[in-house]
Amino acid sequence: MQGYPEVTVLRYGHRPGRDDRMTTHVGLTARALGADRVVFPGNAGQSEQTVADITERFGGPFDVELTDELDAFIRDWDGFIVHLTMYGERLQDVESEIRRIHDDQRQPLLVVVGGEKVSFEVYEEADFNVGVTNQPHSEVAGLAVFLDHLFDGAELDQEYENAEQRVIPQALGKRVEEVDEE
Amino acid sequence: MQGYPEVTVLRYGHRPGRDDRMTTHVGLTARALGADRVVFPGNAGQSEQTVADITERFGGPFDVELTDELDAFIRDWDGFIVHLTMYGERLQDVESEIRRIHDDQRQPLLVVVGGEKVSFEVYEEADFNVGVTNQPHSEVAGLAVFLDHLFDGAELDQEYENAEQRVIPQALGKRVEEVDEE
Repeated sequence: MQGYPEVTVLRYGHRPGRDDRMTTHVGLTARALGADRVVFPGNAGQSEQTVADITERFGGPFDVELTDELDAFIRDWDGFIVHLTMYGERLQDVESEIRRIHDDQRQPLLVVVGGEKVSFEVYEEADFNVGVTNQPHSEVAGLAVFLDHLFDGAELDQEYENAEQRVIPQALGKRVEEVDEE
Repeated sequence: MQGYPEVTVLRYGHRPGRDDRMTTHVGLTARALGADRVVFPGNAGQSEQTVADITERFGGPFDVELTDELDAFIRDWDGFIVHLTMYGERLQDVESEIRRIHDDQRQPLLVVVGGEKVSFEVYEEADFNVGVTNQPHSEVAGLAVFLDHLFDGAELDQEYENAEQRVIPQALGKRVEEVDEE
């Protein structure tokens, strides 16, 4: 998000077919809640296409990429790493420290969102293993709450550039405006 | 959540097979983030079973129910209604009013989470149509951020009763305790 150091979300693991919607939702949630980029495993091309289409219609900047080297991507990250897991430290106990590193020290942040199998190396490479609650729920919900806390709600006011269409908030009904590019 | 008026989440619409995981994640997110109950459409029995199993293992109180009468459930709701939709008013503009009605006026809250087709009647029956951003993302992410704002983060400290097992937060690794019932 503008004014903040980079935030990249890495979806770790993807089973084509079974995970298509969850992976797509991870990407769209990353975009809507202030991240700058999402990286999917190489076999998630369908989700990549959906996220790219939404970004083209509703604006950016937001990047979506594929990688076949998830572990190398994590090892080589130049910044700090948060791995979201129900086994981790409580969000409310570590979030101020995470914000300090991100906002004050201006370090780029990689947020790793697990699929089914996360290797122990991910736990070790992460600077923080964080539980958005220590209950089983949804990686999409965990990512959403994490980003909202990271940005302290400021991402809700985010504006998008180069959109083809924009939703105008309404108390009742639906209103979508076509955006005229200058 | 204890100390708050009831919050029920209604999943509006479900396509068996295609929506199983999303509907399950709506239910698990409702449970983990402070709601008291989730209601699914009658054809979502598989998701109901998963949520009931998780509640038995990780504790409650939390109820999961099925209904074949979604519209009647909404019409007959004794309290106030928030419908989450990307076309609605901005969360940050209406959340203090919603908290006032819930916390101060002590009104039970029904949160309607759309699936594919939401009838216009739902928009009309809702006291608030609310967008957690006006961007397309995920009903699970929207529900998570909404509940976290409703409870102002207090739901993260929630404790569960009658759990068989409990995750102990860890900086590194996984620790799960079996709970001895007295």
